[in-house]
Amino acid sequence: TPPLPAQEFRAHSAEHYQAAAKTITSYALSHREGYRLLGELCAIGPRLSGSENSLKAIRWAEKTMKDLGFDRVILQPVKVPHWVRGNVEEAAIVFEDQKLLRPLSVAALGGSIGVGEAGLEAEVIEFTRFKDVDSLQFDGQGKIFFFNEPFDPTVVTTFPGYGKAVQQRVYGADKASAHGGVAALVRSATTRADNIPHVGSMRYSGKVAKVPAAAIGVQDAEYLHQALQKNPRLKVRLKLSCQTLPDADSYNIIADLIGSEYPDEYVVVSGHFDSWDKGDGAHDDGAGCLQALEVLHILKELGIRPKRTIRCIFYINEENGVRGGKVYAKEAEKAGWKHIAAIESDRGAFTPRGFNFQDNPGQLERAQAWLPVLANAGIDWIRPGGSGVDIRQMKKGPLLIGYAPDSQRYFDYHHSDNDVYAAVNPREFELGAAAMTILAYLLSEEGL
Amino acid sequence: TPPLPAQEFRAHSAEHYQAAAKTITSYALSHREGYRLLGELCAIGPRLSGSENSLKAIRWAEKTMKDLGFDRVILQPVKVPHWVRGNVEEAAIVFEDQKLLRPLSVAALGGSIGVGEAGLEAEVIEFTRFKDVDSLQFDGQGKIFFFNEPFDPTVVTTFPGYGKAVQQRVYGADKASAHGGVAALVRSATTRADNIPHVGSMRYSGKVAKVPAAAIGVQDAEYLHQALQKNPRLKVRLKLSCQTLPDADSYNIIADLIGSEYPDEYVVVSGHFDSWDKGDGAHDDGAGCLQALEVLHILKELGIRPKRTIRCIFYINEENGVRGGKVYAKEAEKAGWKHIAAIESDRGAFTPRGFNFQDNPGQLERAQAWLPVLANAGIDWIRPGGSGVDIRQMKKGPLLIGYAPDSQRYFDYHHSDNDVYAAVNPREFELGAAAMTILAYLLSEEGL
Repeated sequence: TPPLPAQEFRAHSAEHYQAAAKTITSYALSHREGYRLLGELCAIGPRLSGSENSLKAIRWAEKTMKDLGFDRVILQPVKVPHWVRGNVEEAAIVFEDQKLLRPLSVAALGGSIGVGEAGLEAEVIEFTRFKDVDSLQFDGQGKIFFFNEPFDPTVVTTFPGYGKAVQQRVYGADKASAHGGVAALVRSATTRADNIPHVGSMRYSGKVAKVPAAAIGVQDAEYLHQALQKNPRLKVRLKLSCQTLPDADSYNIIADLIGSEYPDEYVVVSGHFDSWDKGDGAHDDGAGCLQALEVLHILKELGIRPKRTIRCIFYINEENGVRGGKVYAKEAEKAGWKHIAAIESDRGAFTPRGFNFQDNPGQLERAQAWLPVLANAGIDWIRPGGSGVDIRQMKKGPLLIGYAPDSQRYFDYHHSDNDVYAAVNPREFELGAAAMTILAYLLSEEGL
Repeated sequence: TPPLPAQEFRAHSAEHYQAAAKTITSYALSHREGYRLLGELCAIGPRLSGSENSLKAIRWAEKTMKDLGFDRVILQPVKVPHWVRGNVEEAAIVFEDQKLLRPLSVAALGGSIGVGEAGLEAEVIEFTRFKDVDSLQFDGQGKIFFFNEPFDPTVVTTFPGYGKAVQQRVYGADKASAHGGVAALVRSATTRADNIPHVGSMRYSGKVAKVPAAAIGVQDAEYLHQALQKNPRLKVRLKLSCQTLPDADSYNIIADLIGSEYPDEYVVVSGHFDSWDKGDGAHDDGAGCLQALEVLHILKELGIRPKRTIRCIFYINEENGVRGGKVYAKEAEKAGWKHIAAIESDRGAFTPRGFNFQDNPGQLERAQAWLPVLANAGIDWIRPGGSGVDIRQMKKGPLLIGYAPDSQRYFDYHHSDNDVYAAVNPREFELGAAAMTILAYLLSEEGL
């Protein structure tokens, strides 16, 4: 492809794109159909992979896509992990000398094994920096490892802070086990000083015995820190009834708006359809899915038929396995689908800031000539950066793009009971959908 | 001043500014002193000009500035308008044939006259576009004029939408009066579909008889629209006990961090201290004031002594008179204070996007070379745009700059019971304070 001269376009004039972008944004902000549908989805409840709820939501999505009259709707079978929190109430209590000091706000981390019916009771050893577990001398035998490294408040955008804070959540149980520990209690990876557990995935390497792991609310983590200063011998009793069941049947859900000139070339817009089992998965990532759907809906309602096929994908199982992304990539290769670009929205439905382009500096530079068009939906920049966990399973081919809304509030809600429909602002959601629609349309027409 | 070469600095190296900016942002985000003080301020309650509460808050501000140990704290006397909502509960009810249909959620607009004790009762004439009152033929005699033009949902940033929506609020009463009307009922100028009144100022030109004006919640505006479709002869009874008292004593509050090299040259950071009497004036504009105070606090705590004096001003009476801005401008001219630049924060404490430079394209272009430094607080751009109502009273001299946070959510809270401390996100607030600190420091050192 010859480089695109700055401010120049191939398929249509600059005026055409300006007018189309204005119309797209106006339509999104005044009709708010995606936002309304997000309300319907959230009313179903959370959508953890393998859960009955997730299947209910998949049926809702399939019906919704068909009702909207898209050209093609595909359910793509995916076998997913099936972890359940269990039926027994999760609990942790702090006590000393048989005396209850305080119950703690906890929730098992996804993938964790449970604790026997009697519960698990042990002394606690605290690490305020995760790396200390590898470098300090200590006796961890028989203890609960309390990983209490805070989310670094000084980061300017929050994702790098999350990337650091989440290490203890993912690897804490194995580290505890390797040092003789019996469980991991992990400070919630959140920017908010609340006291609800923010959950998420953890991993067992298989090299050491599995021990259970749970998230603890930030305020209770602070409390436990103080309590341990006063009495390092206090004990915590932990009850978790989670377990992993055999893999379950599930699906990616796909809808196409078929291109008029290059129907066999695809521009993907996507989010992931599964969520954790706390809150309703509104920002993470119901919003991303409904924004992707809104791309097709807006173009269809405005009578804009793209030159290339625009494909909306709701990937299943991003949170604890990425099975949906892997299956789609494999099936795409088998079918010979030619993807020219893929956009994923998985950073919440906050006000638009930019798009991250992964690994394609030349295409990034050419796309920056489109910024005056994208400004119609509040987009300020295109920068190098990560795209999305699901789309990057397509190892070769598409230009990988991550939608980058403002990051300040995402981890206030993330993986917790805070992540509900009421936490999504309709203007912010719809501007994001408009931004994705404009970019998908440009990619479809110009090819980049 | 010779033009500043792009990416070059005069007073310190680029590395110095990068390091200072990082330190400033880290300090703001980890200490959150301004955010904590905003909580103290909001606990006092709303700060309408002339109110007892506003004087309590002024005493709090003076004490706070002195306790923080700034070099100079000044109370500058300002006579302010003194409008009060009154002691009688505000109410509007809709009825037909003596039968109550529904009470409406209303609140008098600032500056409105009240209604006699018996209340005011009349038929209603609706305008869904404000301009129709000038062009359509109608009989308005003895009627309540219901101005029901919605906030345009399609605007990409919200301030232009507000500018349009607010016309009927400011001029509606006079328009009603000119056409024989007895009152104005005005749809709240808000982006949120709530049912609380969003208030604000209105004006009497003095050319026609004064009639009372009140804001109505958006949901009730929609209801009244529907009810009028069914029965155009229905009536509304309105009770308002507001009145304007004689002007009251009040103050601008000023704190200085005196410059080491040019103590007589000022860089102003500011917000307005008064608010409406709904909510606690958290975003509008307690946050702007505390961000301005945070500029001085951060520099002082970090031991950074600026070359020019950085002056924090809490202006009084922006909402209904701009008396504080006018007095300050006059006193500044009298005293011969040399202001090189003034920044105002009065668009809420949302995530930073940029700064608006008013009327100085040359200085704007030179300051754009500072964007890599300002990026340390999430600033993406410097653009031409409005600065602030208070600082622009200084007719000659300073470069006028408006802090421009993201605008999507501002009018969800603005002038209403929604505008409380809990609606302010600490990270967003402190990033804004850091952005202002970095820019004020650059202006102090470089002089632009």
